[in-house]
Amino acid sequence: MDLGKESLNLHEEYKGKIYTASKIPVKNREDLSLAYTPGVAEPCRKIHQEKENVYKYTSKGNLVAVVTDGTAVLGLGDIGPEAAMPVMEGKAILFKEFANVDAFPICLDTKDVDEIVRTVKLLAPTFGGINLEDIGAPRCFEIEKRLKEELDIPVFHDDQHGTAIVVIAGLINALKVVNKKIEDTTIVVNGAGSAGVAIAKMLLNMNPKDILICDRRGILYSGSAENDSSKEKMAQITNKNQKKGSLMDAMTGADVFIGVSAANVVTEEMVKVMNQDAIIFAMANPVPEIMPDLALKAGAKVVGSGRSDFPNQVNNVLAFPGIFRGALDVRARDINEAMKLAAAYAIASIIDEKELKPDYVMPDAFDKKVVEKVAEAVGEAAKKTGLAKK
Amino acid sequence: MDLGKESLNLHEEYKGKIYTASKIPVKNREDLSLAYTPGVAEPCRKIHQEKENVYKYTSKGNLVAVVTDGTAVLGLGDIGPEAAMPVMEGKAILFKEFANVDAFPICLDTKDVDEIVRTVKLLAPTFGGINLEDIGAPRCFEIEKRLKEELDIPVFHDDQHGTAIVVIAGLINALKVVNKKIEDTTIVVNGAGSAGVAIAKMLLNMNPKDILICDRRGILYSGSAENDSSKEKMAQITNKNQKKGSLMDAMTGADVFIGVSAANVVTEEMVKVMNQDAIIFAMANPVPEIMPDLALKAGAKVVGSGRSDFPNQVNNVLAFPGIFRGALDVRARDINEAMKLAAAYAIASIIDEKELKPDYVMPDAFDKKVVEKVAEAVGEAAKKTGLAKK
Repeated sequence: MDLGKESLNLHEEYKGKIYTASKIPVKNREDLSLAYTPGVAEPCRKIHQEKENVYKYTSKGNLVAVVTDGTAVLGLGDIGPEAAMPVMEGKAILFKEFANVDAFPICLDTKDVDEIVRTVKLLAPTFGGINLEDIGAPRCFEIEKRLKEELDIPVFHDDQHGTAIVVIAGLINALKVVNKKIEDTTIVVNGAGSAGVAIAKMLLNMNPKDILICDRRGILYSGSAENDSSKEKMAQITNKNQKKGSLMDAMTGADVFIGVSAANVVTEEMVKVMNQDAIIFAMANPVPEIMPDLALKAGAKVVGSGRSDFPNQVNNVLAFPGIFRGALDVRARDINEAMKLAAAYAIASIIDEKELKPDYVMPDAFDKKVVEKVAEAVGEAAKKTGLAKK
Repeated sequence: MDLGKESLNLHEEYKGKIYTASKIPVKNREDLSLAYTPGVAEPCRKIHQEKENVYKYTSKGNLVAVVTDGTAVLGLGDIGPEAAMPVMEGKAILFKEFANVDAFPICLDTKDVDEIVRTVKLLAPTFGGINLEDIGAPRCFEIEKRLKEELDIPVFHDDQHGTAIVVIAGLINALKVVNKKIEDTTIVVNGAGSAGVAIAKMLLNMNPKDILICDRRGILYSGSAENDSSKEKMAQITNKNQKKGSLMDAMTGADVFIGVSAANVVTEEMVKVMNQDAIIFAMANPVPEIMPDLALKAGAKVVGSGRSDFPNQVNNVLAFPGIFRGALDVRARDINEAMKLAAAYAIASIIDEKELKPDYVMPDAFDKKVVEKVAEAVGEAAKKTGLAKK
């Protein structure tokens, strides 16, 4: 039986994946009078007196909304909020299973940026954090930006930052394996959607020699008539020499290729024109930009992908559970650059330097140490940058 | 230790009452590939092909949103969405514990009717039903009306209909105890808020001799300058002789008093002017319109209240879990009058006629038969009235 069929049966058998439950028993009148009326009036009063008490007497501090509009679901695209539900439920249970975060799917029946922002703000009293998921670019950028500005709880678009954090964790380790410094590397990011932009922005904070972002038309450069506002902005802060050309041109002499684009867009020839000891993260799903074995055959030294059947899987589950765990634990009012970078270094640090090798730069997603280390690092970074409320 | 203090400690110890969890294990790569990518793409595709499949492959069919704006919470009034959270969590766990409905608190940071309606509509893809809670009158009427019209999942304002269903269940049994027919009874409903209006509307379907609704100023009559639109409408369909006067006037010669108003507004004298074998449901919380022992002393035959420390407790938990269980089980697209009346008769029927007595007209909230019988009756009524989708 194939994976899709098996997954379908599983979803049908259990009728979805998430359920809610009570932390306390309600078996008799006394239980009822404490959990509900009349006893419940007392915590209500305390929160009414001092809003911060909502963290003390309710589940808010551990509740995360997994919010989507269903417009960029997996590789399936704009399939709508109902069809996005299995992914959001999946995300929610990963939050729970990996980091004991109580997450809940919120699938919104609108694609309007203003409405999505307004709706999430109206929902915010229930939640301690907001995980945006599978919202198409460029709408996701504005939605995240506005929510981060207007809410005092952490807001995180996993498709952007989760992917960026994990690939950068892998890159940190891969550079050690090939003994290169990031200051000396030219990095090609193929894909100018939400993940590509987030990866490039995080990389900029690490000061590489240069970053070239490519979209379907080739290298992004400032002033191109094809640029939307997001691409124009990215073109201005990358591509130091404002080079024009194809993906092949970009990869010529590059040290690192990071693909968040489409199946099979990288050829063996492109790998061959990269610098020696090339590093490749080909994350298109389910078929990568270049199959890992082909990339290695063409001369790449370290190769990662989104797939679990090859080494070095770039798996967001390495990042988002620990990030929210850490942010919620210190009641961070946002997730900032320092917290994201701390998460990337924490993930990288799971593998002892002596154990690093080309086919082992990314820790195992099921290593229990991951969430623990990431949460701790993220919490510390929040405290250092003044975002922690406790 | 008092109940409030004890409840506060309980809420602090557990940090609220609700959590989310996974129906399936996610312990290894294979689990992950079925619950999440890449396997999850298959249920997504099936739902995208045919939206109805969302009931087959997701948790939607058993998920109920407990929605409030925090404007009419318990007897505390407009305390805001954060302070409403303990009540909404409480409601959610009662849904779970009594009827295995997965309910989730949604506390909205707005009091605007249009915004509340719009927000609930945008959230609807996640949920199989909407329970409106502690939203002030008259806004609750419009919100419920519009949502019922515009959504194809059941919408139910428990403060209106839950209370109405349970008190009418009690009344059905109480009338048997005093051997009166509803056609011969004059019923005073004191309180013209959400619960009072809902009770009066349900009673109208049962054809009593007359209903007099009173508010703080006295008996509602058509054309009063004090009437808002809801009160004017109710005045027109009750009070057959368009009698004017005080609560005392209303109770003179009445057979039944139903109070959803305020503490101690009914005196012994008012009970004494009622007809013989008077029935009183005094549901103001925590202090009833008249204390049950006083009402009995003044000559009432059957007395119920909202309190668990007196006989005949009118407890909404007798109704809402079974109503949603029944509606979800047959995938009813609404909860209509027939379903509500079926629920009231089902609750009444839990007590065998031979066991009925003045201090036992209302079944025990923890009797397991209640949810079962109510769900079955509600499901049957939905099928008979063409609302069931399966």
